[in-house]
Amino acid sequence: MTDIRIFHDSHSLEYRVPFGAVKVLEKISLKIALDKSASVYINLSYFDGRKEELEMTMLDKSISDNYIFDIDLETISSVGIINYYFKIVYESNNIYYGNNKESLGGIGCVYDRDPIPYQITIYNERKVPSWYKEGIIYQIFVDRFYNGNDNGRVNNPRKNSFIYATWEDDPMYVKDKSGDIAKWDFFGGNLRGVIKKLEYIKSLGVSIIYMNPIFEAVSCHKYDTSDYEVIDKMFGTNEEFKELCEEAKKLEIRVILDGVFSHTGSDSKYFNKYGNYPEIGAYESKESKYYSWYTFDEYPHKYDCWWGFDNQPNTQELNDSYSNYIIKNEESIIAKWIKLGASGWRLDVADELPDKFIAMIKEKMLSVDFESVLIGEVWEDASNKVSYSSRREYFFGKELDSVTNYPLRDIIIQFLIGNIESKYFIRRLMSLYENYPSENFYSCMNLLGNHDTERIFTMLGQNIYLFKLAIVMQMTLPGVPLIYYGDEAGLTGGKDPENRKAFPWNKINEEVFIIYKTLGNLRNEEEVLRKGEFKIIDTLQEILIYERNYKDKKIIIIINPKNKEFTYEFKDGYRIIREFQNNKWVTLTNKTNFNICIKGYEFKICEIV
Amino acid sequence: MTDIRIFHDSHSLEYRVPFGAVKVLEKISLKIALDKSASVYINLSYFDGRKEELEMTMLDKSISDNYIFDIDLETISSVGIINYYFKIVYESNNIYYGNNKESLGGIGCVYDRDPIPYQITIYNERKVPSWYKEGIIYQIFVDRFYNGNDNGRVNNPRKNSFIYATWEDDPMYVKDKSGDIAKWDFFGGNLRGVIKKLEYIKSLGVSIIYMNPIFEAVSCHKYDTSDYEVIDKMFGTNEEFKELCEEAKKLEIRVILDGVFSHTGSDSKYFNKYGNYPEIGAYESKESKYYSWYTFDEYPHKYDCWWGFDNQPNTQELNDSYSNYIIKNEESIIAKWIKLGASGWRLDVADELPDKFIAMIKEKMLSVDFESVLIGEVWEDASNKVSYSSRREYFFGKELDSVTNYPLRDIIIQFLIGNIESKYFIRRLMSLYENYPSENFYSCMNLLGNHDTERIFTMLGQNIYLFKLAIVMQMTLPGVPLIYYGDEAGLTGGKDPENRKAFPWNKINEEVFIIYKTLGNLRNEEEVLRKGEFKIIDTLQEILIYERNYKDKKIIIIINPKNKEFTYEFKDGYRIIREFQNNKWVTLTNKTNFNICIKGYEFKICEIV
Repeated sequence: MTDIRIFHDSHSLEYRVPFGAVKVLEKISLKIALDKSASVYINLSYFDGRKEELEMTMLDKSISDNYIFDIDLETISSVGIINYYFKIVYESNNIYYGNNKESLGGIGCVYDRDPIPYQITIYNERKVPSWYKEGIIYQIFVDRFYNGNDNGRVNNPRKNSFIYATWEDDPMYVKDKSGDIAKWDFFGGNLRGVIKKLEYIKSLGVSIIYMNPIFEAVSCHKYDTSDYEVIDKMFGTNEEFKELCEEAKKLEIRVILDGVFSHTGSDSKYFNKYGNYPEIGAYESKESKYYSWYTFDEYPHKYDCWWGFDNQPNTQELNDSYSNYIIKNEESIIAKWIKLGASGWRLDVADELPDKFIAMIKEKMLSVDFESVLIGEVWEDASNKVSYSSRREYFFGKELDSVTNYPLRDIIIQFLIGNIESKYFIRRLMSLYENYPSENFYSCMNLLGNHDTERIFTMLGQNIYLFKLAIVMQMTLPGVPLIYYGDEAGLTGGKDPENRKAFPWNKINEEVFIIYKTLGNLRNEEEVLRKGEFKIIDTLQEILIYERNYKDKKIIIIINPKNKEFTYEFKDGYRIIREFQNNKWVTLTNKTNFNICIKGYEFKICEIV
Repeated sequence: MTDIRIFHDSHSLEYRVPFGAVKVLEKISLKIALDKSASVYINLSYFDGRKEELEMTMLDKSISDNYIFDIDLETISSVGIINYYFKIVYESNNIYYGNNKESLGGIGCVYDRDPIPYQITIYNERKVPSWYKEGIIYQIFVDRFYNGNDNGRVNNPRKNSFIYATWEDDPMYVKDKSGDIAKWDFFGGNLRGVIKKLEYIKSLGVSIIYMNPIFEAVSCHKYDTSDYEVIDKMFGTNEEFKELCEEAKKLEIRVILDGVFSHTGSDSKYFNKYGNYPEIGAYESKESKYYSWYTFDEYPHKYDCWWGFDNQPNTQELNDSYSNYIIKNEESIIAKWIKLGASGWRLDVADELPDKFIAMIKEKMLSVDFESVLIGEVWEDASNKVSYSSRREYFFGKELDSVTNYPLRDIIIQFLIGNIESKYFIRRLMSLYENYPSENFYSCMNLLGNHDTERIFTMLGQNIYLFKLAIVMQMTLPGVPLIYYGDEAGLTGGKDPENRKAFPWNKINEEVFIIYKTLGNLRNEEEVLRKGEFKIIDTLQEILIYERNYKDKKIIIIINPKNKEFTYEFKDGYRIIREFQNNKWVTLTNKTNFNICIKGYEFKICEIV
């Protein structure tokens, strides 16, 4: 290698303006610094596959006496992603500078060849409705939440199912020898139960209820839809859903539905494998009006299905008959349920839905309710997600408002249990911050756990101190906090089915409940926590410090997951004027609060000036 | 071999008097016929292990010009079994004559050595109460019979169990990976349900209800007793049991309980493996008052248990503490439940209970209710059963009144489905007839199926014609017919759990029901069917004909399981005067009814003179 030194930091406004994702039509200015003179080019790849190489212009030395090269990019025709790296021709050698090896943005590195590029997301801005962006979500797995029947009976138990003898029993799957479900298992929670617990939910500071699927389906999880038009009889009726939305609205709570459109159930009015429905299904005859929805390899026994589960045949989402039924018709499924009271949809396995299908849903939703939101289940960085060898268009302005923030869940857990240091936590978080359009970054569905993951309390080894820190992070980091039913009661459990225990109404962990309630309500009271810009303050190895600021108000949050005491001193002359102690604000009158001491396993939330 | 011809037939009064088992003090006369003169000895083995060889006396030729040898045996000191065979010394050779190779009695055969002996059972007579001997039993697996709660709810669902969603669901076991039951499964039948269905049961002609265990236990079958003193909470209360017995009594129905004394449950007030009971259990401390009931190899984790199932630790039945609790105390378990209304006990796994324990139970029962009966679960010929290398004393007069007649079930099925001919059916039946004391033979619990076997309808390939023949045989052969709940409704099912489906109250097979009801009531109306002596009439290869006679009345039953027509002609000048046709008696006026035509798959029940 040569002895030339090269530097670019995508997070620094000295090297890249503006920070992060860019609204279409905005200009982008990129700079790179060298300690020697050379020819510098930028290599660009656009979302549509175009590539180009442009020569950069050397400016007057302006950063630390280095040679600075500059280029301005137009974004008018570049919605999607622009990837870039630099080529430096020095002493007849080509040297490359690209993103770091982990593709996290920020400071990059030098490559001999095949540099990993940086990413700039270019999007059409779509403001995410503030009811969502500033809300707190409560996720309910309906069967396991609350049985609202006065007599405690289970509504219309589904033939060939099991009902747990008591609400406190541990859930389990009942499988046959080949590993298939032999009987589905139910506790008997229902919509009436959700209605009856609205006040309870509200008390946590919640403003949005997201329910796992509730349409007619054989399973307890209902991701195998039998009929998109009706609430499952064990859960209630369409009228009760309407009532739920109305009652929730009175408490300023919105309702979001789970839409499972990549597949239906095999025991459905559409596929009708078992003849349980009156209409002729796709499995029964090629003449079925639903035949075109599915893909058969050998009719009728071999068909394309979700992850090989033959009870969940895949749909051809872009088939006209299907997309009209789900989306485009006047009384489509998407439209129907919004009209009945829902404020949004969460799309199950968004990765498996065509971009066009998602965009059609969004378009329809906007036409029915401009304030509705669309959330996608995406497990990775959604800005550059590749699924089935294609890059996905989730965040370019006509698609999703929000995605499930599994990456954040992962780093919160890894940080708290000591697997990663705060520096790495920040790098990972900054990568999302840079790649996601700002509206989307601040609208991520920030879950600590859900029906598809271990419970957060279990992931943290049932350490109550770490659990509190996790809740503080969830309630103060950018994004929409999601409380998975029962987490606030101290429910524990590993993967499915342990993460789907019945809500322990008679055994609520008060210590956990209080912290959820306090922080949820703190977030609701403090505009700065809902709307404030996010900023990393400083980085000690072991503790995490960040700021939210809005208008003139600044709040800093300090998280110490170690069993050690730290003292943090404000570098910029800031001073603490209030501290959130024992669940309430305490005004500090001492004018010399320039530093703060934080004990092991503790957090601080302070207002500074 | 020599050319001498030898003959003995234990079923013929010419060779053995009296027929079959012999009351102690009665003399036995045995004869054997030879076509040549020789020395003849009889070899005898007694139940107590004594053996002797006696020389027989040659009589005047009296049977077909042969040489007849004779001996009379006293039975005064021989309660139990005498086994015998003959030794013939002819031309200096020892030749033996013993039972046939299948040990079925009747005509025997010649052996060079090691002859199989004949059996004579010697017993103290104990009259079996007529309510039992002449009754019809209805067996109820309580959880699966009927839920008598007005609101349809399940009583006190047991924690960590499953309740079937609908009464019509198929039962299944829910096992974990190691094959143990993960959760027990319940439909919710209860004693209230039995009370509510008493009139229904009575309508079948039933006079005895035998219930599978009903004491507190974790499982749905309740063979793992947790507390012998109380009815399981899911089934009801002790008061409801009393009420059931009282209400049943009003309809002249007796109640028999299932006593499981070879083991308890591990989750019991006695063993208390899981600490669910307040008293200190054997598993918890060697100081437990129940410690001596059990056998520990390594305290407390390794203990002797039933068939290796560690949820069913074996008891030491003859331990004083245990036998006092179960039997001897004033308020022992045996006594308590008879006082509460039961009329008898069926002993689970009688093979695994010491003879002495069974005799103690019988003694106690007689002291509490002289009319009570004791039935043993025995799978083979109970007169010569060997278990754990010991011969068992079931039928010597101080023990069981009745046993489960699995051998009869087996031959009825094998005969009806064509696996055995009527001749072999008869030989097998005659073997029981010969070996069992008469009272016991006529008191066998004649089941066609139960909770431990496939359902009879299924065993007969759901052939309704064969099913009817089976019911006719059950209701007309000697012994007490047992209807396993639901058989009369046409329930089908293979082995456990298929044989434990919930009673199909909404789908009763009327054709089957009518035949059960008609024949049950016919048996009740006709003393001759309840009390009549049993006699084989004749033996065509493929059809079966037998007679019941009492006082001057004779009824013959003809069973034709083949798809062929037969005509049977009475040899002894008998004439048919009545025929049971289309569920009622039809008097035949023709004076020349000397023969009878029977179509394929049909039966005839005729009164003859």
